[in-house]
Amino acid sequence: MSRLKKIKGGVCLPLDFVAGGIHCGIKTSDREDLAIVYSQRNSVAAATFTTNQVKAAPVKISMKHVRSRSVRAVVLNSGNANACTGKQGLDDALSMAKITAEALNLPTQQVLVCSTGRIGVPMPMEKIIPKLRRLAGTLTSQGGETVARAIMTSDTYAKEAARELFINGIRVRLGAAAKGAGMINPNMATMLCVITTDATISSSVLHQALREAVAHSFNRITIDGDMSTNDTVIALANSASKCAPIRAGSAEYAMFLEALHSLCLELARMIVLDGEGVSKFVEVEVRGAVNNIEARYAAEAVANSILLKCAWAGNDPNWGRIMDALGYSKANIQEDQIDIFLNQLPMVTGGVAGPASITSLRKAAAGKAFRIGIDLHLGQGRYAVLTTDLTEEYIRLNLGE
Amino acid sequence: MSRLKKIKGGVCLPLDFVAGGIHCGIKTSDREDLAIVYSQRNSVAAATFTTNQVKAAPVKISMKHVRSRSVRAVVLNSGNANACTGKQGLDDALSMAKITAEALNLPTQQVLVCSTGRIGVPMPMEKIIPKLRRLAGTLTSQGGETVARAIMTSDTYAKEAARELFINGIRVRLGAAAKGAGMINPNMATMLCVITTDATISSSVLHQALREAVAHSFNRITIDGDMSTNDTVIALANSASKCAPIRAGSAEYAMFLEALHSLCLELARMIVLDGEGVSKFVEVEVRGAVNNIEARYAAEAVANSILLKCAWAGNDPNWGRIMDALGYSKANIQEDQIDIFLNQLPMVTGGVAGPASITSLRKAAAGKAFRIGIDLHLGQGRYAVLTTDLTEEYIRLNLGE
Repeated sequence: MSRLKKIKGGVCLPLDFVAGGIHCGIKTSDREDLAIVYSQRNSVAAATFTTNQVKAAPVKISMKHVRSRSVRAVVLNSGNANACTGKQGLDDALSMAKITAEALNLPTQQVLVCSTGRIGVPMPMEKIIPKLRRLAGTLTSQGGETVARAIMTSDTYAKEAARELFINGIRVRLGAAAKGAGMINPNMATMLCVITTDATISSSVLHQALREAVAHSFNRITIDGDMSTNDTVIALANSASKCAPIRAGSAEYAMFLEALHSLCLELARMIVLDGEGVSKFVEVEVRGAVNNIEARYAAEAVANSILLKCAWAGNDPNWGRIMDALGYSKANIQEDQIDIFLNQLPMVTGGVAGPASITSLRKAAAGKAFRIGIDLHLGQGRYAVLTTDLTEEYIRLNLGE
Repeated sequence: MSRLKKIKGGVCLPLDFVAGGIHCGIKTSDREDLAIVYSQRNSVAAATFTTNQVKAAPVKISMKHVRSRSVRAVVLNSGNANACTGKQGLDDALSMAKITAEALNLPTQQVLVCSTGRIGVPMPMEKIIPKLRRLAGTLTSQGGETVARAIMTSDTYAKEAARELFINGIRVRLGAAAKGAGMINPNMATMLCVITTDATISSSVLHQALREAVAHSFNRITIDGDMSTNDTVIALANSASKCAPIRAGSAEYAMFLEALHSLCLELARMIVLDGEGVSKFVEVEVRGAVNNIEARYAAEAVANSILLKCAWAGNDPNWGRIMDALGYSKANIQEDQIDIFLNQLPMVTGGVAGPASITSLRKAAAGKAFRIGIDLHLGQGRYAVLTTDLTEEYIRLNLGE
């Protein structure tokens, strides 16, 4: 039934979306730093935001605006996070929405705002305002990649992904632009993602699908355990495909969710692999925990252990540090019940060294990517995270100014 | 009233303690790797152990033995942690206690065991047993420093400290040997400390004092957030000073506790400063949290943020990353109530950039040591931790083999 296809393209691939990006001077380099994504017809939105208690001004504005029934545009910038900027920051984020809305002839609450970059610095509105007005008049269906470029911070390439599926014979497309998370550069690191689709779906069903897709993709990546003040994933749906409305719980919903999840997962993997200073891609999967929450505690303790990440950078399988991290995690464990696999190799069996040879373990740990499988043998709880090693280059890149 | 003095010396400074160390071959280098501390008269013990659910075999044995009314000796080794070694590991740790006890003519449960080094590798008992017997016959009152040397892993120097005080005119002494915590080397990193005193004190009162002293010293240091399977602090008291028994709640108890706390704090600071790859010593103090537990969450989130530790290594005050860490900590915060000071400089006021100049903040952050003071303005909760930056050298040292 599923005819899900991975195709080339970004936010302008779905019908009736236009976009564009421009250099307005927030960044000192001459790269694009301001972008707009716009649906030429009525559209609805769903979004997930950082759970950090310190939320950037654009997050606060977008959280409010996404509650309106209809959202038509997103304005995004890099170079300044507009976080910890107080009342002025809120005024500035609202201005960005307002100016975009006026230029596109929309109510202000139909525009969402995303920012990424330095924290605690006022937005240079004198640079943004004139360029934003000009940008709004130049959006085209060729502008998708410019959006992906305009939100880059230390990403080494613009991140786009797209999917195509057929729902009862009607072609439906999803496209996205994203930027990297964690560790990324001397500024605050933020994950941003804008997804567009020409599916016909209500904002509440879209929200349900987005929440589920994000939980199993972006929320499964952890690089340094820090969580930004600006993380935002937005989805816009404009019905331009003319497919029948996608209802919660239907077969069509399952197809749409599969496409959305696969899109998010591809972008999440790109973000991890493109992290500067990253030399390895590590999947940590815990099973047999008392429950899923404890499985998550265990997996995240392993994935965020500084000592272990250093060992991985040195091609050292170091299961002792895994046992140690499991032991101090908030998950219940029983030392003599723990099995740990490196790829398929039994590294730990019943809490002590397993039968795999040191040579085979070292060879596996020297790979560009590997999987740590942990079975706690206490219950049915499962959780998996994607993470990275911790290299000297990471430190160099994060030394600050 | 207090005549507390910091003096030179280690575990043999208090009366009637003897000690010694030897190279038995657990380490491939020719450095000492096995040691004994012994009270020549009846003594009592108290100890605090790692709260990691994965506990090394010697920790399990020592937890049992410390419950006996009298403890007279501690046997310690470096080069092998005897952790994740199953039934064989327990047998080996017990053998170490037993052989020491036989050689010193003590019941086995009067001997505690401490190990530090590689995890998951069986103890080379064939090397340990003959040397341990020989070592037990050569203990002297000059052996204190050898103990400090024999427990070193990547510590750059042997860590000793001592205190002298007068309780109702009677001289009482405390001496200690310790080794570094966290991040230390390609092996599992462990904090070990043995404290001796000739004070007259019951094991329960000694335990009360030790718990309190450790809570405000060793438990306040965090380098990489990891917690070892072997961390142990042991205190032995042998009454040799002939001071009157120190009762809980008395003025004498307060004096003794002050001495013990100051001793532990000196060693904790040494451990942090001697961490390989450490270039800065940072004190993070949170006040104004809803309660002390939340103050601790907030302080530890800041102290363990990889991004922030990298910024410190680069002399970057980066208050944005502090706000970010406070925001994702489990402590309740209100963004616009937060004040942050770098030493005395107001870096953040009411959640936004404070009046301190960037130049003055950068100068302070370039220091070898500085203090981050955070006021959440929500309640009376307070907590302080000592931590470090995160450098490229740290990574290099922890790459594993």
